[in-house]
Amino acid sequence: MTINIGVIGTGAIGEDHARRITQTLAGGQVVAVTDVNQEQARGVVERLGLQAEVYANGMELIAADNVDAILVCSWGPTHEEFVLAAIAAGKYVFCEKPLAVTAEGCLNIVKAEVAAGKRLVQVGFMRRYDKGYQMLKQSIDSNDIGAPLMLHCAHRNPTVPDRYVTSMAIVDTAIHELDALRWLLDDDYKSMQVVYPRRTKNRFEHLADPQILLIETLKGVRIDLEIFVNCQYGYDIQCSVVGEEGIANLPEPQSLQMRKGAKLSHEILVDWKDRFIESYDVELQDFIRGCEQDSIGGPSSWDGYAAAVAADAAVTAQESGQVEPVVMVERPSFYS
Amino acid sequence: MTINIGVIGTGAIGEDHARRITQTLAGGQVVAVTDVNQEQARGVVERLGLQAEVYANGMELIAADNVDAILVCSWGPTHEEFVLAAIAAGKYVFCEKPLAVTAEGCLNIVKAEVAAGKRLVQVGFMRRYDKGYQMLKQSIDSNDIGAPLMLHCAHRNPTVPDRYVTSMAIVDTAIHELDALRWLLDDDYKSMQVVYPRRTKNRFEHLADPQILLIETLKGVRIDLEIFVNCQYGYDIQCSVVGEEGIANLPEPQSLQMRKGAKLSHEILVDWKDRFIESYDVELQDFIRGCEQDSIGGPSSWDGYAAAVAADAAVTAQESGQVEPVVMVERPSFYS
Amino acid sequence: MTINIGVIGTGAIGEDHARRITQTLAGGQVVAVTDVNQEQARGVVERLGLQAEVYANGMELIAADNVDAILVCSWGPTHEEFVLAAIAAGKYVFCEKPLAVTAEGCLNIVKAEVAAGKRLVQVGFMRRYDKGYQMLKQSIDSNDIGAPLMLHCAHRNPTVPDRYVTSMAIVDTAIHELDALRWLLDDDYKSMQVVYPRRTKNRFEHLADPQILLIETLKGVRIDLEIFVNCQYGYDIQCSVVGEEGIANLPEPQSLQMRKGAKLSHEILVDWKDRFIESYDVELQDFIRGCEQDSIGGPSSWDGYAAAVAADAAVTAQESGQVEPVVMVERPSFYS
Amino acid sequence: MTINIGVIGTGAIGEDHARRITQTLAGGQVVAVTDVNQEQARGVVERLGLQAEVYANGMELIAADNVDAILVCSWGPTHEEFVLAAIAAGKYVFCEKPLAVTAEGCLNIVKAEVAAGKRLVQVGFMRRYDKGYQMLKQSIDSNDIGAPLMLHCAHRNPTVPDRYVTSMAIVDTAIHELDALRWLLDDDYKSMQVVYPRRTKNRFEHLADPQILLIETLKGVRIDLEIFVNCQYGYDIQCSVVGEEGIANLPEPQSLQMRKGAKLSHEILVDWKDRFIESYDVELQDFIRGCEQDSIGGPSSWDGYAAAVAADAAVTAQESGQVEPVVMVERPSFYS
Ligand SMILES: [Mg+2]
Ligand SMILES: [Mg+2]
Ligand SMILES: [Mg+2]
Ligand SMILES: [Mg+2]
Repeated sequence: MTINIGVIGTGAIGEDHARRITQTLAGGQVVAVTDVNQEQARGVVERLGLQAEVYANGMELIAADNVDAILVCSWGPTHEEFVLAAIAAGKYVFCEKPLAVTAEGCLNIVKAEVAAGKRLVQVGFMRRYDKGYQMLKQSIDSNDIGAPLMLHCAHRNPTVPDRYVTSMAIVDTAIHELDALRWLLDDDYKSMQVVYPRRTKNRFEHLADPQILLIETLKGVRIDLEIFVNCQYGYDIQCSVVGEEGIANLPEPQSLQMRKGAKLSHEILVDWKDRFIESYDVELQDFIRGCEQDSIGGPSSWDGYAAAVAADAAVTAQESGQVEPVVMVERPSFYS
Repeated sequence: MTINIGVIGTGAIGEDHARRITQTLAGGQVVAVTDVNQEQARGVVERLGLQAEVYANGMELIAADNVDAILVCSWGPTHEEFVLAAIAAGKYVFCEKPLAVTAEGCLNIVKAEVAAGKRLVQVGFMRRYDKGYQMLKQSIDSNDIGAPLMLHCAHRNPTVPDRYVTSMAIVDTAIHELDALRWLLDDDYKSMQVVYPRRTKNRFEHLADPQILLIETLKGVRIDLEIFVNCQYGYDIQCSVVGEEGIANLPEPQSLQMRKGAKLSHEILVDWKDRFIESYDVELQDFIRGCEQDSIGGPSSWDGYAAAVAADAAVTAQESGQVEPVVMVERPSFYS
Repeated sequence: MTINIGVIGTGAIGEDHARRITQTLAGGQVVAVTDVNQEQARGVVERLGLQAEVYANGMELIAADNVDAILVCSWGPTHEEFVLAAIAAGKYVFCEKPLAVTAEGCLNIVKAEVAAGKRLVQVGFMRRYDKGYQMLKQSIDSNDIGAPLMLHCAHRNPTVPDRYVTSMAIVDTAIHELDALRWLLDDDYKSMQVVYPRRTKNRFEHLADPQILLIETLKGVRIDLEIFVNCQYGYDIQCSVVGEEGIANLPEPQSLQMRKGAKLSHEILVDWKDRFIESYDVELQDFIRGCEQDSIGGPSSWDGYAAAVAADAAVTAQESGQVEPVVMVERPSFYS
Repeated sequence: MTINIGVIGTGAIGEDHARRITQTLAGGQVVAVTDVNQEQARGVVERLGLQAEVYANGMELIAADNVDAILVCSWGPTHEEFVLAAIAAGKYVFCEKPLAVTAEGCLNIVKAEVAAGKRLVQVGFMRRYDKGYQMLKQSIDSNDIGAPLMLHCAHRNPTVPDRYVTSMAIVDTAIHELDALRWLLDDDYKSMQVVYPRRTKNRFEHLADPQILLIETLKGVRIDLEIFVNCQYGYDIQCSVVGEEGIANLPEPQSLQMRKGAKLSHEILVDWKDRFIESYDVELQDFIRGCEQDSIGGPSSWDGYAAAVAADAAVTAQESGQVEPVVMVERPSFYS
């Protein structure tokens, strides 16, 4: 069985997912595309040699009979309506981050999915599919290091463009950890605090960089997450889990060991896409397999909501300088 | 376009390739299978839910109209005839190691392919598709370390079964390096010598283990390859390329760094399949893509022949204790 | 010229320093010892074959004509009076931690030394003499990584005895970092905050373990220091300095790389003495050399005072749960 | 008790040893010096502030009443006569490499020492005192990795001066391993073979660089030692011991881990002196302690002889291209 997929939004990530489905993954084919820029949508069909219809808009694509599953890769503010429409149509939908631009929007989706009585939504938090994070989670779950007590994390980018503002450190950057760490620990957040170190000179005047996000979880785990988006030297994701019996660290990406010029060195990646490129393959293959088997796994609407609530608290903490509580509605049993 | 694939030999590797094509890779489907054990062939069809016909034998499968490309995964001594038949039928053929059980047999295939005037054969030397080896080759080719002068290599297995005999250190074990190092260096072998260290107590009486294979290439590179198949501690593949300006080492497989029990440690793999599992995906995807584009790359018949000749010289060197020359026929321009 | 040294307090550390001077270091000899346990003092003389007089008490030892320099290794609460007496006698004095048991006591020493008009006191903060910390400081001072912005540190012990209480995480454990980090950064502390992660089960009921000490410096550097004294796996000291252009990490102690039992591993030390044993040699050689050259360097009375004030603020922060300011008197120009 | 030491030859190494005794080590003082260049000898006395007499020649220095022990740091061809004279005088003598410039000369010393009936000679093979080599030996001796079967070693220098010729790869460079590996394995050599890889362009025309020395020991261990004296990137000493149960590697020198400029890197030393500077301290302290306790340990005359014989065989193998036997006289029970 081949899953017929419709792609809403054929910008960079949408085109890349279409390519992935066509050239790399098993079990799916792109049969429908749409974009606010119709020219762009047609270009993707041509470049990838797709046998796919170009729809006028997302709603028509969702409604199309031969579309089994939908990928939402459009502009963030449009996600909510397309995901809700897919749920209404009873079709599986893979939604790129964010699920919705507000926690309330995410909750609308949660409610619609619960009402539908079936998991239909997978959110594009690809880190859960990263081989390194999976090794780390397996090690924690196997009790190799005992109960986790502390996490020391870092999210570092070489540079960011001028339009990057202080709150984006949370909503664009730390958002990946806000999802991944909940999943890693099987835990939820209790509070958020932000402290500001001395700022790097390598930043725009308007930007507080670096920042440290201090998190407490419901189980009492303490997380410190350095967010440093002009660190210059590379794209570097660190996660060290300190448990009662030992410590497990997120693996470094595989790289050559070189001896040259009085240095023993390994390359550090500089482009985030290189770091997680394989996770995109795995997450989307998982989605397609879920569609085939009529049983979706992966990050859920609830996870999308939880990340949104956590991000809201962290942004509040950025501004208040205080410890801010993370307050969520009760978790529907549907998601447990 | 979907490539219709026929699989000859549905033992462990054949079934795994069929699963790969069906569940993991894009662009191909298994439409035909055969095995000397027909029950086994039918079992694979059932387990994987294939829509595939079970043929009485390899020749009938190769002849089948709807078969575009053939995978030869049967018993080694049968490879030659199936590959020759596929060439005769003008069909692409992916042949697991060895291409043929003698250098002469490989040469028959080389000649048939040259006569056919088109590359049809890809040999299953999967190491060339390993991400680590590709990084290493890229580094050499980019002249990061200048001209290679020496390679220090090791091929270590935790243990081998009782039926493993001394010559298998070459024909079953070192054979992977005999292909990969030619490719890595873009070079050919001049001579082989084998020296025998003190034997490990952890071996069968009949087996010389470890062994060191000393190779000289036509360009003058010196290679020492430790072959140690009862090393106890893990499946460990090492390759250190010493160049005029520096050294590049094959990456270690990605793994967690753990601090526990007074050790800072990384896991070492123990099963060779875990080490190269992803390379199998990549090599077969490359083959399918080659079929789609009517242009096969990857390890050629000539490479299969070269590995066979090198292995013959190394086995002779095991017995003679001398430096043995590696003598090949002239390389057809077809393969350059 | 040989420096004649008198040792006050011949317990474990006092005897070890006496051995060091006698058997390992150049330029000094132990000519006088004393201890509240006179038997113990005589035992050291005998065990080390010293030609040294045993004095009835520290004051008599300090007063002895042939004593050029004093080592204060007695019980903490006695340090202040002995150091003051040495200053009064115009003799060089090396004082083990703490310089005095209160910040006020340290300040008394500072004032006495300033009044004496000459640096006479060196405090036993041996980490500054650790080869790894020296490499780290040199790298920072060479501007390899630009201005430091954040430090991620950890101080981990495998276990502590029952008598270890929560405040000792600061005054016995973190005290080493409280000195070393000021020196490393050439900076002073602005505030202290303590957060408590989930407690490890591997602790005594009365003890909060682990703890995280969050520090802000006057230059705005943010330090997080994990203090985990029942971490089980080893004695492990980590210090990662994040600068504007890169990151420098305190080196791991030198150790064998082993491949064994499916692990690639390095040993982690479990005894803190093994970690800093060489630093003791270097610090004491530096003191002896300072005496010879009539010019003492190393950690000063002021550094002893600064560490005491910082520790007081951190202990207050342990109890208050708040961000506590670090308030010092003005630094005498004498120490700049 | 302070050992009164006379230094014959106050060139670079002689002056450095004199400084070491005076400023770093316990238990010894330099009371006599001599050099063919008397001006040089007087300069050392002055620079180090020694209270030492300058003798006209080595023989007079050896004969001096107040000289307890002798350091021979003069030109290689003079070593034999000075060591023999020290033995004749019944004085301890530390002799820098080589013990004598011929195996025969070494044997003369062995015979004289045996006749004297007491170990008086220590040879300056400082690697045995390197902390890393000591860790490695301890691991082997503790049977951590079972019986050693193979050693993969490398001795790499960034560059060598023009006067360095092919045989110096053995007699100046590999000589350190020729001693250290016998000691590490508690074994002796059976044969030597040299193979020549493609030569680096970064060498003088007259020099074969790199070279690989292949050694078999009496216990059957196989050693491959890469000698590469224009490797460009650093001074790099590698030793990997492959045993029946695992592998132990010589530790890398301690260094900072840096993240900078898209590299995760450690510095590699470029100056051999930095690599073994601490070993010089330890070996000489061991000699002084041996003098004090009237019981010398460390590398013996026999070790000096064994290294000379091994080097002779290796030089022969460089020229013959064959496997050359290593033939020693029977070991006097005196040295066992
Ligand atoms: Mg597909
Ligand atoms: Mg497929
Ligand atoms: Mg001394
Ligand atoms: Mg001395």
